Amino acid sequence: MSTNVPALVGTALDDVITPCLVIDLDAFERNIQRMARYIDKQGLRLRAHAKTHKSANIALLQIASGAVGVCCQKVSEAEALVNGGVRDVLVSNQVVNPRMIERLAALARQARVLVCVDDLHNIDAIDAAALRYGSRIEVLVEIDVGAGRCGVEPGEAAVPLARRIAGSECLRFAGLQAYQGKAQHVRDYAERKAAIDTAISRVSGTVERLREEGLDCDIVAGAGTGTYRFEGGSHVYNELQCGSYVFMDADYGRIRMEDGRAIDEFEHSLFIYTTVMSKTKAEKAICDAGLKAQSVDSGVAVVYGRDDIEYIGASDEHGVISDPDNRLRLGEKLRLVPGHCDPTVNIYDWFVGVRNGRVECLWPVTARGMSL
Amino acid sequence: MSTNVPALVGTALDDVITPCLVIDLDAFERNIQRMARYIDKQGLRLRAHAKTHKSANIALLQIASGAVGVCCQKVSEAEALVNGGVRDVLVSNQVVNPRMIERLAALARQARVLVCVDDLHNIDAIDAAALRYGSRIEVLVEIDVGAGRCGVEPGEAAVPLARRIAGSECLRFAGLQAYQGKAQHVRDYAERKAAIDTAISRVSGTVERLREEGLDCDIVAGAGTGTYRFEGGSHVYNELQCGSYVFMDADYGRIRMEDGRAIDEFEHSLFIYTTVMSKTKAEKAICDAGLKAQSVDSGVAVVYGRDDIEYIGASDEHGVISDPDNRLRLGEKLRLVPGHCDPTVNIYDWFVGVRNGRVECLWPVTARGMSL
Repeated sequence: MSTNVPALVGTALDDVITPCLVIDLDAFERNIQRMARYIDKQGLRLRAHAKTHKSANIALLQIASGAVGVCCQKVSEAEALVNGGVRDVLVSNQVVNPRMIERLAALARQARVLVCVDDLHNIDAIDAAALRYGSRIEVLVEIDVGAGRCGVEPGEAAVPLARRIAGSECLRFAGLQAYQGKAQHVRDYAERKAAIDTAISRVSGTVERLREEGLDCDIVAGAGTGTYRFEGGSHVYNELQCGSYVFMDADYGRIRMEDGRAIDEFEHSLFIYTTVMSKTKAEKAICDAGLKAQSVDSGVAVVYGRDDIEYIGASDEHGVISDPDNRLRLGEKLRLVPGHCDPTVNIYDWFVGVRNGRVECLWPVTARGMSL
Repeated sequence: MSTNVPALVGTALDDVITPCLVIDLDAFERNIQRMARYIDKQGLRLRAHAKTHKSANIALLQIASGAVGVCCQKVSEAEALVNGGVRDVLVSNQVVNPRMIERLAALARQARVLVCVDDLHNIDAIDAAALRYGSRIEVLVEIDVGAGRCGVEPGEAAVPLARRIAGSECLRFAGLQAYQGKAQHVRDYAERKAAIDTAISRVSGTVERLREEGLDCDIVAGAGTGTYRFEGGSHVYNELQCGSYVFMDADYGRIRMEDGRAIDEFEHSLFIYTTVMSKTKAEKAICDAGLKAQSVDSGVAVVYGRDDIEYIGASDEHGVISDPDNRLRLGEKLRLVPGHCDPTVNIYDWFVGVRNGRVECLWPVTARGMSL
């Protein structure tokens, strides 16, 4: 990996080898600052989701800008970031493999570690592991607020789980995980808001029900880049978990604000940098970024800043770009906005940070492939 | 990477940590032997495509079973495999970045290196680099036989390229690259055959035209797992480039033979091994293999050996499995057949080789992420 870097610090952008991930550092820093200002103004906590970037460098920048810590989705991802200097990590997911529960409990000796649960036996297994390591783990009960994925039903079903955590030896009941993942990319503003309004009322009822049992929720966590202003203004959620705002992908560019315009508070800062590698046809060009350079689950990449050409198809190592006016030339470089940043980032070993047309930093994708 | 292995040699399959890539070694070896027998019987050469597996271990097994060498799609991929012991590599693609042309020429000091071209200036650049390194590179002219991607038109357009190569200082004109990538996954047998019949006649005409100019094609290369029997029986192609046959993915499982049955000469040998990580709902289960565990460009993964459940959706770290009879249990493990093996393999650092329910080998995905 380290011998196969696409550039060195100081390399001119034009000379960066492709395909690779380029970060426009100015846009990226503005995104971080905009979110930080919002969180500060609202008196909320941001626990930025590191599943987007998997980078210790970026996590530490977010923390330096006020984030209380990060979320990870996997224990191995959390380990990589703790090894990179992060000291406060929520695994915003269930951990059920016995070996990984062991690693979670061990990691809690080195950092503040939180985790989500939706099963009673799983709580016992995590408690037993923490006891073996003499560690303390904070636990959130995950409720399903409409995504239809993990989590128990809101309300009564959360009570026995919270009570079991509170009555355990080494765990602390820390609150609720209530992320509405399905709502994030809903295009229509009213529809997106309605989904979160529903989530908020479910969370609110669950917090209330737990309080009746003497179980206070210090943390009520959720929200993503598509909906965070709804959760942020709810007076119910107090810890937001946005991730994509640092980069913004093509799919987030498709969701609409109240007035029908594209969401514009964050900028595209992450690009797949690519080169035209074959130009034998007048009406199209072939570039070097295909399926191994992006995840196409939310559509193929979009050419940035050009409306005369279009990325129309991908095979393993090739992208097809329609070029109706025959403008592209062999060797020409283009910036593509990934359709979906998180699984795209997970393919690459390096971020190439660029400012003023020159490489300023090379950041490893610290937790790349850390899926255990 | 090496600290995050999903298993150790000797681990029981049930104890392998998920998600990870598991190879059924028996099925895998049968696939390799079946292709080797065909190639031998037909008197052809196999240059197995390593873009599928990116593994030096697997490349060397293919060579031990008669393959003359491997294809790679990228110079960095070729470097990784040469470092892993492979001594004969065709970069079955164009190389246009000056830095990567340099690396290609340098690599040709260590191994037999071949490359494809479809541009005159590119030939000069490769020749100049080879001169600097005192290396010799064999060059194939790529013709577009219907895929509509790289390559010049068949026939006359190949002549000036072949002549330029033949007249260069350090390059050798080795023949034609004529891969019909678009035909490989065509479901219908007759349609697939028709596409390759067209390709064969284009290749044949081009070989003839070059011969008139005194330019002999030692290598006439192409074919993939979906169509290789057509090219293999053509008496025009002499070097086949099949890759997916070692693993077979769900999409190859959908193409039909002449009698309408699914292709059955190769077996599924590669699986995404996954665990049910949340089971709070009667009618579905959530597993730990989502978009970061697979490429969904050819559809989501398919549960292997079970028709009572179905993998129906993926988010970043979660897969949704419909479970109409509520049979799945928390912690249960499943094997998934990837929709498309090549870009799925490119996400993982390790292959876990399994025989008789026990891990027999851990093979690094040697050229993972080597996209330069």
